[in-house]
Amino acid sequence: MKAFDLNDIMVQLRTALEQDNLDAAIQTLEILRSPDQADLFAELDEDEQIALLAQLSPATSADILEELEDEDAAELVLALPTETASRIVDEMAADEAADLLSEIEPEQARAILARLEDPEEIHPLLLHPDDSAGGLMSSEFLALRRRMTAGDALRAIRQWKEEDEPVHDLFVVDAERHLCGQVSLRQLLVADPATPLLELLDPDMIAVPVGTDQEECARLMSRYDLLALPVVDHNNVLLGVITIDDVVDVLEQEATEDFQRLGGAEPLEQPYLSTGVLTIARKRVGWLMLLFVTESLTGTVLRHFENELQAAVALAFFVPLLIGTGGNAGSQTTSTIIRALAVGDISMRDGLLALWHELRVGLLLGLGMSLFAFVRALTWGTDDRLALTVAIAIFTIVIWANALGALLPILAARLRIDPTVVSGPVMSTLVDATGLFIYFTMARLILGL
Amino acid sequence: MKAFDLNDIMVQLRTALEQDNLDAAIQTLEILRSPDQADLFAELDEDEQIALLAQLSPATSADILEELEDEDAAELVLALPTETASRIVDEMAADEAADLLSEIEPEQARAILARLEDPEEIHPLLLHPDDSAGGLMSSEFLALRRRMTAGDALRAIRQWKEEDEPVHDLFVVDAERHLCGQVSLRQLLVADPATPLLELLDPDMIAVPVGTDQEECARLMSRYDLLALPVVDHNNVLLGVITIDDVVDVLEQEATEDFQRLGGAEPLEQPYLSTGVLTIARKRVGWLMLLFVTESLTGTVLRHFENELQAAVALAFFVPLLIGTGGNAGSQTTSTIIRALAVGDISMRDGLLALWHELRVGLLLGLGMSLFAFVRALTWGTDDRLALTVAIAIFTIVIWANALGALLPILAARLRIDPTVVSGPVMSTLVDATGLFIYFTMARLILGL
Repeated sequence: MKAFDLNDIMVQLRTALEQDNLDAAIQTLEILRSPDQADLFAELDEDEQIALLAQLSPATSADILEELEDEDAAELVLALPTETASRIVDEMAADEAADLLSEIEPEQARAILARLEDPEEIHPLLLHPDDSAGGLMSSEFLALRRRMTAGDALRAIRQWKEEDEPVHDLFVVDAERHLCGQVSLRQLLVADPATPLLELLDPDMIAVPVGTDQEECARLMSRYDLLALPVVDHNNVLLGVITIDDVVDVLEQEATEDFQRLGGAEPLEQPYLSTGVLTIARKRVGWLMLLFVTESLTGTVLRHFENELQAAVALAFFVPLLIGTGGNAGSQTTSTIIRALAVGDISMRDGLLALWHELRVGLLLGLGMSLFAFVRALTWGTDDRLALTVAIAIFTIVIWANALGALLPILAARLRIDPTVVSGPVMSTLVDATGLFIYFTMARLILGL
Repeated sequence: MKAFDLNDIMVQLRTALEQDNLDAAIQTLEILRSPDQADLFAELDEDEQIALLAQLSPATSADILEELEDEDAAELVLALPTETASRIVDEMAADEAADLLSEIEPEQARAILARLEDPEEIHPLLLHPDDSAGGLMSSEFLALRRRMTAGDALRAIRQWKEEDEPVHDLFVVDAERHLCGQVSLRQLLVADPATPLLELLDPDMIAVPVGTDQEECARLMSRYDLLALPVVDHNNVLLGVITIDDVVDVLEQEATEDFQRLGGAEPLEQPYLSTGVLTIARKRVGWLMLLFVTESLTGTVLRHFENELQAAVALAFFVPLLIGTGGNAGSQTTSTIIRALAVGDISMRDGLLALWHELRVGLLLGLGMSLFAFVRALTWGTDDRLALTVAIAIFTIVIWANALGALLPILAARLRIDPTVVSGPVMSTLVDATGLFIYFTMARLILGL
């Protein structure tokens, strides 16, 4: 019942391959489910992978390729004879096949497409961007005709050959393939076979235009608990259907991108360990340099207060502590606000509401932290007035960091910039220079420097 | 086809309520889908909400309550007469009803349970923790019997009264309700009605024990593209079924929690704006104080190098810049590694692999940043040897931050601690003190202080 122990099976697979026993290797793989097959497969050498793909049934090879990253799958397909490659691609789901072919040189993709049984299923999918409804949808779906009865519809479902495609939600079209409504398999089953579809269908289902962003499709399916979402062109002609399993992948992918952005890096397009060191460095260096330039403002502030620093070197001891606490408070706020925007808990219009919320949170945290810092500074043997300066500075900096952390992501969203640009590192950097300014100004006032 | 304009409808709803026209308000709400109904409903005053719940059809009230946060729904239910409350809870999905009742005092929950039509559907669900398979599953499912034929099964489906529960994947049990296998509605439809279920069912489906963590259930359903996941007890007796829509919510909720932890705060249990200021402050202050204490190490390091600072105050100008860059590099690494662990791109055993990857990324970034910093320091009119100190320090700090950012989350995972504890703020704080130590040691060596 449980998933197999993949480590044991990997040992069997390696042994079979070392003995050049391809049949045993194939038998070992074929008892697994495709995500597990793909995991083991990915650990093999490229020549072993190519040998296996050529010998496995085209359906199994197709399942494995669907699970791999598009780029890796494309590389393998190119290493196979065109004839074999086409037989495998023919068995892939149309949307996955289109994603794979879009990674290949047009000429070679055409050679493969030319040998497919149903190239017309894949062709239209190649036209849409990967991250749009058109790139996500499957073109293999069963469209019921409006004039059918429930009995006709059940017969059509029984005869439909695409065994792997889901049929729980079915869409109904007219003679020009305009989307008219939705009906569930269960409704068809329960209804009298003579009932016209027109009486059963729900004309008020949610559909999306083909260019809709994949994140919006995911949001709609998640909000309205949809298992299937129809995709239409500007004339309301049904082009394809997005299924929930694709959307689960989109949600994970978008969360991963947001995570990496929140850490202050451009998102990687491939899984971590498959991404080259140079690519990772390139995705990070831009932000690192931009933040460095911004952060050098701290140097300007410190120079500006050079005399104060000369007069009381002890002031410097608290610099990392103060700006660090400000950066932490800002990070806490901004990550909460960014996620609340992403899942729709707050909207772009809630800027003032969020600011008011965070000002009060900042007031509480600022009070707590300044008391804490005051006691800590005194027990460290710091002069009273310096301890007071530190306490008042930390109070002000925390409130300032919370306000900035609430406002900036919402401001970014209003300017149609991805709010995740206001990452933790960006917040720390912005709070550092302003925090120093606050600290030294307080020092001037309180210590009379 | 598209979602309605909720703002317009909100205006209609408010107008109707101000004119005390409850019927018009109900008509306005009933044309909407339940997530939209709940959104508008949540904006009303509590007495308006209670009046509406009592007047809407129990099914609509149940749909709205299912969409609200459990705590808010429980509060409303308590404000209704027990009779009305029971009628509404009766219409709720059993898993949602159980979540709601678990928020209520046992005595009041018992009073409601006593009046339900099918209390035995909800009862067992109350025993399992909210975040386990048992808390997530629905107990309203149709179990097919092993001795049935395909025709018997279709008849059972036609007669099943739970209209809202899905029937695309059906589970087969023996006379003692042990789980024997899975069959899809489509298979039943295509098969000859006389075919025994035993010939159709897949005995090798994935099932989970009732105590499985909800995150693991979500991972399995997402990995194997499952629409339904059966939940069994230790004797393999089928207790319930988890459906994909619940898992989509779990994935979103877990990502939200990871986000907040990554920002250095404990996750909130409620949506942002519904969480009180005091609760938010409480969720953040612990980390803020812990980080403050750790960060005060920077003060110790700076004191240790007090003589060097006295001799060259210009050294202080670069402190925030250097430790800021280290913190940023560490944040970039740790957020990438944490997410790669969460989605399974790397496993706990890949510690050395990730370290090797990040050491090379750090080498590249360190080289780039140190060159950049050297030029920047010179153009600022800094003394050559100080500029060289800064460049070498930044090179070392970036590599160090990358190594730490790769190792710590994996180490946490191995110690069975949630890797998100190594948040951006934690990384910055850890890198700050060590970064200062590196910087001043370099200064001592190069400047001969």
